[in-house]
Order: sequence, then structure tokens, then C-alpha cells
Amino acid sequence: MGVAVRNFARADAAAIERLGRFGVATLHEAQARTGLLKPYMRPVYAGAAAWGSAVTVLAPPGDNWMLHVVAELLRPGDIVVIGDNDDGMFGELLATSYGARGARGLVIDAGVRDVKSLTEMKFPVWSRAIHARGTIKSTPGSVNVPVICAGMLIHPGDVIVADDDGVVVIPRTRVGQVADAAEAREKREDIVRRRLAAGELGLDIYGMRDALAKAGLKYEEEPPG
Amino acid sequence: MGVAVRNFARADAAAIERLGRFGVATLHEAQARTGLLKPYMRPVYAGAAAWGSAVTVLAPPGDNWMLHVVAELLRPGDIVVIGDNDDGMFGELLATSYGARGARGLVIDAGVRDVKSLTEMKFPVWSRAIHARGTIKSTPGSVNVPVICAGMLIHPGDVIVADDDGVVVIPRTRVGQVADAAEAREKREDIVRRRLAAGELGLDIYGMRDALAKAGLKYEEEPPG
Amino acid sequence: MGVAVRNFARADAAAIERLGRFGVATLHEAQARTGLLKPYMRPVYAGAAAWGSAVTVLAPPGDNWMLHVVAELLRPGDIVVIGDNDDGMFGELLATSYGARGARGLVIDAGVRDVKSLTEMKFPVWSRAIHARGTIKSTPGSVNVPVICAGMLIHPGDVIVADDDGVVVIPRTRVGQVADAAEAREKREDIVRRRLAAGELGLDIYGMRDALAKAGLKYEEEPPG
Amino acid sequence: MGVAVRNFARADAAAIERLGRFGVATLHEAQARTGLLKPYMRPVYAGAAAWGSAVTVLAPPGDNWMLHVVAELLRPGDIVVIGDNDDGMFGELLATSYGARGARGLVIDAGVRDVKSLTEMKFPVWSRAIHARGTIKSTPGSVNVPVICAGMLIHPGDVIVADDDGVVVIPRTRVGQVADAAEAREKREDIVRRRLAAGELGLDIYGMRDALAKAGLKYEEEPPG
Amino acid sequence: MGVAVRNFARADAAAIERLGRFGVATLHEAQARTGLLKPYMRPVYAGAAAWGSAVTVLAPPGDNWMLHVVAELLRPGDIVVIGDNDDGMFGELLATSYGARGARGLVIDAGVRDVKSLTEMKFPVWSRAIHARGTIKSTPGSVNVPVICAGMLIHPGDVIVADDDGVVVIPRTRVGQVADAAEAREKREDIVRRRLAAGELGLDIYGMRDALAKAGLKYEEEPPG
Amino acid sequence: MGVAVRNFARADAAAIERLGRFGVATLHEAQARTGLLKPYMRPVYAGAAAWGSAVTVLAPPGDNWMLHVVAELLRPGDIVVIGDNDDGMFGELLATSYGARGARGLVIDAGVRDVKSLTEMKFPVWSRAIHARGTIKSTPGSVNVPVICAGMLIHPGDVIVADDDGVVVIPRTRVGQVADAAEAREKREDIVRRRLAAGELGLDIYGMRDALAKAGLKYEEEPPG
Repeated sequence: MGVAVRNFARADAAAIERLGRFGVATLHEAQARTGLLKPYMRPVYAGAAAWGSAVTVLAPPGDNWMLHVVAELLRPGDIVVIGDNDDGMFGELLATSYGARGARGLVIDAGVRDVKSLTEMKFPVWSRAIHARGTIKSTPGSVNVPVICAGMLIHPGDVIVADDDGVVVIPRTRVGQVADAAEAREKREDIVRRRLAAGELGLDIYGMRDALAKAGLKYEEEPPG
Repeated sequence: MGVAVRNFARADAAAIERLGRFGVATLHEAQARTGLLKPYMRPVYAGAAAWGSAVTVLAPPGDNWMLHVVAELLRPGDIVVIGDNDDGMFGELLATSYGARGARGLVIDAGVRDVKSLTEMKFPVWSRAIHARGTIKSTPGSVNVPVICAGMLIHPGDVIVADDDGVVVIPRTRVGQVADAAEAREKREDIVRRRLAAGELGLDIYGMRDALAKAGLKYEEEPPG
Repeated sequence: MGVAVRNFARADAAAIERLGRFGVATLHEAQARTGLLKPYMRPVYAGAAAWGSAVTVLAPPGDNWMLHVVAELLRPGDIVVIGDNDDGMFGELLATSYGARGARGLVIDAGVRDVKSLTEMKFPVWSRAIHARGTIKSTPGSVNVPVICAGMLIHPGDVIVADDDGVVVIPRTRVGQVADAAEAREKREDIVRRRLAAGELGLDIYGMRDALAKAGLKYEEEPPG
Repeated sequence: MGVAVRNFARADAAAIERLGRFGVATLHEAQARTGLLKPYMRPVYAGAAAWGSAVTVLAPPGDNWMLHVVAELLRPGDIVVIGDNDDGMFGELLATSYGARGARGLVIDAGVRDVKSLTEMKFPVWSRAIHARGTIKSTPGSVNVPVICAGMLIHPGDVIVADDDGVVVIPRTRVGQVADAAEAREKREDIVRRRLAAGELGLDIYGMRDALAKAGLKYEEEPPG
Repeated sequence: MGVAVRNFARADAAAIERLGRFGVATLHEAQARTGLLKPYMRPVYAGAAAWGSAVTVLAPPGDNWMLHVVAELLRPGDIVVIGDNDDGMFGELLATSYGARGARGLVIDAGVRDVKSLTEMKFPVWSRAIHARGTIKSTPGSVNVPVICAGMLIHPGDVIVADDDGVVVIPRTRVGQVADAAEAREKREDIVRRRLAAGELGLDIYGMRDALAKAGLKYEEEPPG
Repeated sequence: MGVAVRNFARADAAAIERLGRFGVATLHEAQARTGLLKPYMRPVYAGAAAWGSAVTVLAPPGDNWMLHVVAELLRPGDIVVIGDNDDGMFGELLATSYGARGARGLVIDAGVRDVKSLTEMKFPVWSRAIHARGTIKSTPGSVNVPVICAGMLIHPGDVIVADDDGVVVIPRTRVGQVADAAEAREKREDIVRRRLAAGELGLDIYGMRDALAKAGLKYEEEPPG
């Protein structure tokens, strides 16, 4: 506790933008089904989407002092990530501040408030709950140290992508590789999508019929007796 | 495990359409308060509504192989019903396929992903959770056998009606009778609604005053000292 | 059980309107972080907001008889408050009745149904769940006695304010004082908001730097080790 | 916040002892199915049972300062009741103190720790959770004011009875009347129990057969075809 | 609703006893990982174990009238199975009656009370919750019809086995076959257990090393970097 | 995925034994309220206690193949730690194997089965759930890499202490320092405990009276009118 780190390596901005073109589900698959935060993390308003470099906050329970400290260390394109906490840790005023400093959103394993203002400001937030109970400011925590958020370890500089499906983290050093894998996956899926839309079956496109027969699947014309 | 049934009796299409004019709450009441799935089943987007014949899927935990098998057995007007499972069993590609084969929606006691695409496609889904974690394809299950979904036993050919209030199942052989009861109920409610909207009281419309007095209700002019 | 109180003191209408200009989070802070109902109370549709005098209902489990009794005792500007209960206690017909009698909304520690109609009618409801299962009418409860709703004791005549952040109750006798405190708070926040929006930091606006240093916060230029 | 009340009326000690002879379920029935705390309140060790006068504590979130204040105001035979809170508010040291001052147990709508010591000391505790996370001591709350604990309003001096079934509160002024009702109920149940143990049926003892037939129950010799 | 079936086929008593020698986990595996009730079903006291023929009860919410009807239809060796319901549906008196009629236990997807008495009587119960809130007796349900209990469809005459791991249902017609499979499994496991207890590794006993290497597992002497 | 690390630094055995003399709550306090796993981690049987070096397992969902791989890498005094997973990942056979290889217990953020055998064997397990559903063995994970378990990052070689209060992790390099702090804390608490047991008040022992008065606490002789 008690350390605020000013500088750390961020991924290349163009590489982050490239990741941002994919959805959370695609990126989760593209990195071998890792990196997905727990599904209790939900966007505060429907249609929210954000991507950027993680700046991280570790705060004592119910204490949002560090949420002010992090504001100074933000750079345009960042996403603030706050580990396991309580209550209404975040609201309109901090969103105003973070937005003014260039942040693109917030991922917080705790409750937030001022839902209406956040929605009007279009400041996207993924949180565990809506909770209006306020916080205190009495004990320092840390900024830009590794934090656990909704079951995932997130380092400052990791890339966050979040949308209606949830939140995924991509380690900074794997950004290019994951974008490549996501692109390849999406290309394959585009072809499959068109064929499925035309009424072809996954059974045929993926060639599943033999494997299913071998695994013992039987077809019956009618329900058993 | 391991049986896919191709054919089963469906209810008359006109009878299903007739059911589809009523809401879930009305149909639940119209069949003597039975048939309602557990309330954790929520639509993926607000305003979703669907009705149709159930085609059913029983899949091993975290394995969505059978979700491809069912696609071939769908007929226009069907709703896919998937029993208790995990994670992100269903997403945009399967929705594309099901839509192309004429399905009207999905009821799944598990998680789904690609919320944004499902919303844009207007493919209505009722699920237990939004979860982007993917599935495997390694063990057959069954298609068009009776399944338990969110606490209700659903047979292939039963009729599903789903809206913002949840999901209700009507046994295939009771479709006409339930529609009659729903219609009668709605007629009664239309009259009551008009009277309530005009400021009349349920106490008077339903003639509750005597029963309440007999049951011991007392009116007091002021709060007790 | 079994008492319906007809009259009780309500707060001054103008004072209630004044409270209604503030959000739930502000009012919760303005009364020293008290009065907030449990965060599981959520609006049935996004953007809902309501304020008014509480009329209260205490009903036996799964029995909505008293919800008809209260309709007669409503006055324009009231909000109905229903304590801990089950299932689909409330729906379109009661909303029609309450609306016709001038009620502005409902706060219910139980489930409601007819979500689509409530949304179209713009009758705002905060509830614990959406649940279509119906109720019985067999045992009297009480109306306009103190009730516990989502963890708070609410007296008839207390003022309820509810929005996307949840529900807060303000004791009738403290309405003016809380409005004053909320107004003062909002004025302070307006100034802070403008400064934050201009890129100033909370650290400087609130003068936190010294306190943080004293509490032991250290800045590091780079991640340790 | 910020008031500690030293004196308040307690029920007669003999009357409390009389209540303590009955179980929670019996007392809940004996006062017309009221007074039961939410079922998430569980004893820390199996077989715990306690009864006594409530002394009450209202504490800010995660702050257990008031739990020390209440110790001085305890009298032999009291049970400490702590309203909705967080974490590990209570453990072995406070149990030692409360026990030394004559308290018979604790009912706390929050988490406790030192389970092993509490069990060895036989200091009975009913809580919402086991949680070892500690608390702060920075903001006063109140002692011996009415508190809401697990969904029930409890006044200082109300009588608490708790066992493996949960916790029930009996208003101070109704202690004798509830004990009478419980005694009458238990007498009736003793007779019924003996008859049931001898193999007689509740159907006959309670004379339910006609009512069931009238309500439409049919007996069938075999399952329907 | 409203049917009580007196007679139905039960499995052979010796076959049921044979099943009762195996644990829930073994039987669940022995029938290809089917039949397990949801894990929220927990024994009321540690060490509970029971096996027998299911007699089934379908009751309206919060109404335990049918729990008396079933008592008459019990035969020695039966286990009562009660589908999804609420509250304190069952307690000491009914346990006395069921025990006197020869029942071996209860499986109930609802709450029970009188935990202390049930424990002293050694009447084993698996339930969803401990809840002391009582029930009404006003609407008939059915007895000995198929019911859904904790996510599984259970027919009267199916065999129930329950222990500290939970509850499993074995269809009546598969009792012998499942016992055979369980016996074979247990024999294999006995051998494996002895070898494991002697310090041999599952890797070698099951011959997993090659498959793991083929699947890509690498051993490293030291942590990377 | 796919790496099993054979060797890593463990803390000194005597230092681990020293830690094992303290309870989880004391150790959590002794390291500045860090290291506590989420409170949903509960012992499978009451009275369980264990301490030792973490060996860690990262396994794909519902796949317990790695739980066999880790057995070979165990050393006497180790505790196996398994990150977020599903179902009945662990039971009697693996407990036999781990016990034979010298392991002292298991901490698993998933479900376990064979509760009765684990209790009889006195093999202590802390888990998220009891669940008898089995697992597959098809995809490698990793052994002795950092894992997240119940909200905490655990490295191989960190020290785990677990008891009825939950589970705490102490980083390997801080073992001595935390034991010192725990010892100091326990000494202070022993003195306080004796004074509390003699009837002294925490208010006096900790000298809280002035601080409380300054913070605004008022004593009243009687409840406010």
C-alpha cells in the first residue's frame, strides 16, 4: 500500500486501436480463452464499448482517495481499472475529471453511482453493482501496481477491451499477436456467417457429421414409444 | 444421451399465433398459475417478445455441439429451448443460423454472448446470464427429448411464449384451452382497466369491502398514539 | 395486522418538489449517508425518476389484497411503498388504478410483472425482481403503518426520492433541512465539476496532496524491480 | 448518529426465561407469524440457543467502535443486536468482554470471525457470514436506539430468542401474551405429536379429509395412463 | 393439480439396499453423470444418509396441505420428495408422522424448520434452506405425480440416494444396471485407492504421461524468467 | 497453459510452523489486512486447520487432469491451491494421493465431493461449494505458476494458513516478518483478553472515551421522548 507509480510501458496506440475493432468474445477466443473478467461485470448503460491501456488502482475497502490520485497519472486513451472494493466508489465528478484527462472509461470491481449522468456523458463504466452509498478518504492505497479485478490479474499497461459482453484483458506484450489471431478468427467467421445466413448448416460447414456419428449420436424419426 | 429426434407433433400454427397475442403473466394465470420458468431468465434486450413451438436441446456441461445439430431440425416458427448448462453456449453465429432456418428465438438456461449483435439482429434470447466464455464440442447430447429448463419440464412441441416478464410454457395439447382462458381473462381485465383508469377502486369493482371487514380489517382516521 | 390508517401528516408539497430536484446519491450524502434502500432495488425501466410522500403497505407473504386497500387512501403526489414480500405482487391493473388516483410511482421490496405495460404507461416502479407469478387475496395486512422496505424503516408521510441510482427515504420532519444540505452540496459540486472539466485535479481542488504525503503515499517514477 | 442510551425498560426476567423454553418456529407462529429475522442469519456453531433482552447497536459501515461502547451498557441476560453492516465486525475479544459483562449472545447482520474460539467459549452468535476482514474505529454510531437487523425493526428491550432455526424478536410489551400463545400451541402439538408418532394421520387428527375433497382433491389408484 | 395417486411401481427392496451402499458421487458417475440434483440441496445435519423409493409431492407456493396427504400413502422405505416451493414447509411434526409411517427421509426444494428436533430424531432431510416461516393450507396440489425437484425430474418410484455430497435420483427401471456400474466402478477405485495410498501416482496408474505430452504439457525445472 | 514447474523456492519449514500457530484473522491483521481470500471459501468440515507451502494449479474449466500432474510435484508440508473452476474437481481418490505424498490440505476455488470420506480421512479442504458433478480430462493447464484463487494472487511457495475463519496467503518473502507481527499482536491481545475477561472495558483499556466524546458521542440516560 502507499505507492503511486507515474510511468509504465503502454502498448502502441495503433495496436490498441486495432484490438478495439474486435468484440470481447472474439478477443477472449483469440487468446485461447483467457483474459475474461467474471461475468458479473456489466456496463452501466447498454451499448457501452471502450478499449485502452489499463491504469490500475488498489484502494482500501470503502475508501476512494486513490481514485483522485490516479487522475493525475492518466494519459489520453487510458482506462482506469479498480480492484475489488465496495459501494459507490465512483460517480459523476470523478467521471468528469477522468474524461477531462483523456480517459476512455472505467472498469471497477465495486459499485458506482450517478448512473444517469454517466449515461448522458457517455462515459462508459463496467461495474459489479449500482450502489449510491458513499465512501471515505482516509487510507492510501496504490496506483499502477498489479491489481486483481473481477478474478483477473491486471498490470498497468495491459490493454482492456470492454463491451456489452463484458470485459477482457490482453497482456501488453501480446497485443499484436492477439489482434492477428482475432483478425484471422473474424475472417473465418465472416465466411461462416455468410454461409449460415444462406441456410447452410454448421454440421456441413464444419464437417461435424462423421464425428457426431462416431461419438454415438443417433437420429430417430419419431420420439421413442 | 445421444439421440436426435427429427419429427414430433407441433401445435397448430394459428393456435400458436393466438397465444402470442397474450403476455406471459396473462398466460401463466390462464393456465392456473403453472408453466412459468424461474424469474432469473431475462431477455438479452428490452422489449424482446417471441412465441413458437419448442425444439429442445440437452447438452453436456459447457459443450455446444448439439446446438449445431438442432439447427437442421428447426422449422419456421420454432423456438430453441436449451436446458441447464454453463457459460457462453450461444452467440451471433448460431443466431444467424437459427434465424436463417426460421427460428424465432432462443430460451437457454445458461449464458450467451454477442449481445450487441443479437440486439442488432433482433434475434430474441432469454438467458440466465451474459457470459463470453466459450464452449467445447466433444460429447453428444440429445435433441428433441424432454428437457428441464429453468425449473420447468419442456417437451418438444410445447408452446413457448416469452416477453419482458419472463418465459411461460404451454403444453401442446392445452394450447386452445389456454388461449380461451387468456382471452376471457383479458376481456375481464379490459373492463376492469377502463374502470380503474376512470378512478374507480378495485375495492368496489371486485366487491372486496365486506370480505375485508369480515377478515378483520379496521380503518383508523389517525395513526395510533 | 389489519389496520388501515386514512390520514397522516404529509410534507409540504413545495418542499417535496424541492427535494425532487436532487438525485438519490446527493440526498443520501446530504443526510449524512443515511436513508438509502438496499441496492437490489432497481427501476423497472431505465431513466425512471419519482419523488413524493410515502403511503405504506404491509402485506402477508404472496397476498396482494392490501394493494387494493391502499388505492383508496392515495392522494396526488404519493408514492406507494410495499415492504418485504414475494413474487408478482404488482402489475398493470394496479398501476392503472394508482395512476388514476394520482400516485407517482411504486417502491416494492418484492417482484412485479407487466414490465412492458409499466414502461409504456411511464409508471415508475423500483422493485427487487421481475416475477410474473401471481398472488392470492386472503389475509389482511395494514396500510399506513411503519414498514421495513429493502432495509429501511419508512413511515407514512416520509418523502421518497428514486432514480437510476436507487431509492432514498427522507424523514418527513427533515425535508427542509435535507433540501438545504443538498442544495449546498450541489453548489459546491457545480464549482468542482467545472474545475474538473477544465482539467484541474481533485488533488489540488480538495488540497489532498499534503494529507496523502502524511498518510505515507510515495510516488515512484517506474514500477519497482 | 452519536447517541448511547444507558437505560431502557427490559422485560421481566422470569417472563424472558419462560419464552426461552420455546423454539424460534413456535414463537414465530405464536405471534401470528411475525418477528422472524431473514433466514440468512445462521448460528456460528450447531446447537446454539440463546434468549434475552436486546441491547442494540447502530454502527457506520465497517466501523466497530460502537461495539465497545455497548459493552459498558450490558446487563446480565442481555443479547447484543447489531444492524446491517460488513465484514468481520466481531470476534473473540469482544465475545470475552460481552461474556464477562453477562451477555448471552450476539445477533449481527454482518460478518464475524474467530469461529473456533467462539465455539470453544460457547458464546452463541447468529450472523450473516463468516468473514475475517477487520474493521476501523473512526465514526460514532448509536447504542440502544431502534435498529433494523436482518429485515426486522428491533427496539432495545425487545426479547430475542435464537436457535438452529434462526432468530425471532418479541416486542417487550407482548412477552407474556406470546409465551401464553406458545404454551398453548406446544400443548396442542404435544398431543398431536404423540398421535402422529403412534401412526395416526394428520388428515384424521386435523379432520382435513372433507376440506380436501371439497377443494377438489381426487384419489386415483394408479398413475394416469 | 388435485390428484393423489395411491399405487405405483417401486423398485425391488433388495436392489434399493444395494444402491444404498454407494455414495452419491459414485452413483452419479455410474449413470453417466446424470441424475444429480442441484448442489444447493444440503443435509440439515452433517453425516445424514438415506436411500429409498421416491414418493412425490407437488404443492402450491407456501401451502403444505399435500404434505399431510402424502403421509397416508407412504410405505416403509420411502423417501418423500417435494418440488420447488418456499419457506418452512416441513418440521418436527411431519417428521414424526413420516417416521412413524416408515419413511426414511425427505428431499425438499424449499425451506424446513425444527432443525434441532430433526437432528435429535435422526430424520434426515435435504433442503434448499433453513427457514422458520410457516405455511398455509388452502389449495390442493398433487401426490405421486412426476415433480421437478432441484433441477431434476423425479417420478414416483424412482430411487433416491442422498448423503453429504447431495442427492441423486436413479430411474426405477435402471436400478440394477446402475448398481452394477457402481460396483464395477468401486472395485476399480478400490484398487486405485490402495495404489495411491502407497504413493503411486495417478499419472502412472492411469497411464496419462503420453497423453499429456501429446496434448502439449511441458515440464520446466524452474519458474520462467 | 501447458507448463508444469518442478522446483520453486519454499519458505523455511520452521517459519511455516511458526505461522501455523496463529489464526487466519490474526495473520490477516498482522500483514496490514491483506492476503485474505474471499469469504465464500469454507472448510468442508468444522474444525479444519492447515498451513503449508502453496503448490498451485491452473486448470481449464471442468477439467481436472492437472490435479493428477501436481501430485508428483508435491513435497511433504505442501498445500495444493487450485484457481477458479467448476463442479466436483476433487474427491477422495485425489485426497488419498495427495495425503500419501505428504500434502496437508487443499484450497480450491471450485466444488469438491466425497465430503464424508474427506472428513473421515481428516484431509482438510477449503472450497467454494460441495458439488458431486464430475470433470473431464482433456486439456492441459499449468502447475506451479501464479494463480488467482478466490480473489487473491497466489505464487507457488507462498504460505497458506486456513482455519474455520477462512484462508489467508502470506508471500514467501514476508513469512518471518508476518510471524513477528502476529506474535506481537497476540501478546497484546492476550493481555487485553485477560483484562476483558475480568470485566474491564475496551473503552478503558484502549482509552477510547475521549476520542468518542470528541467525535460527538453523547450519552443519554433515557430513550428520547
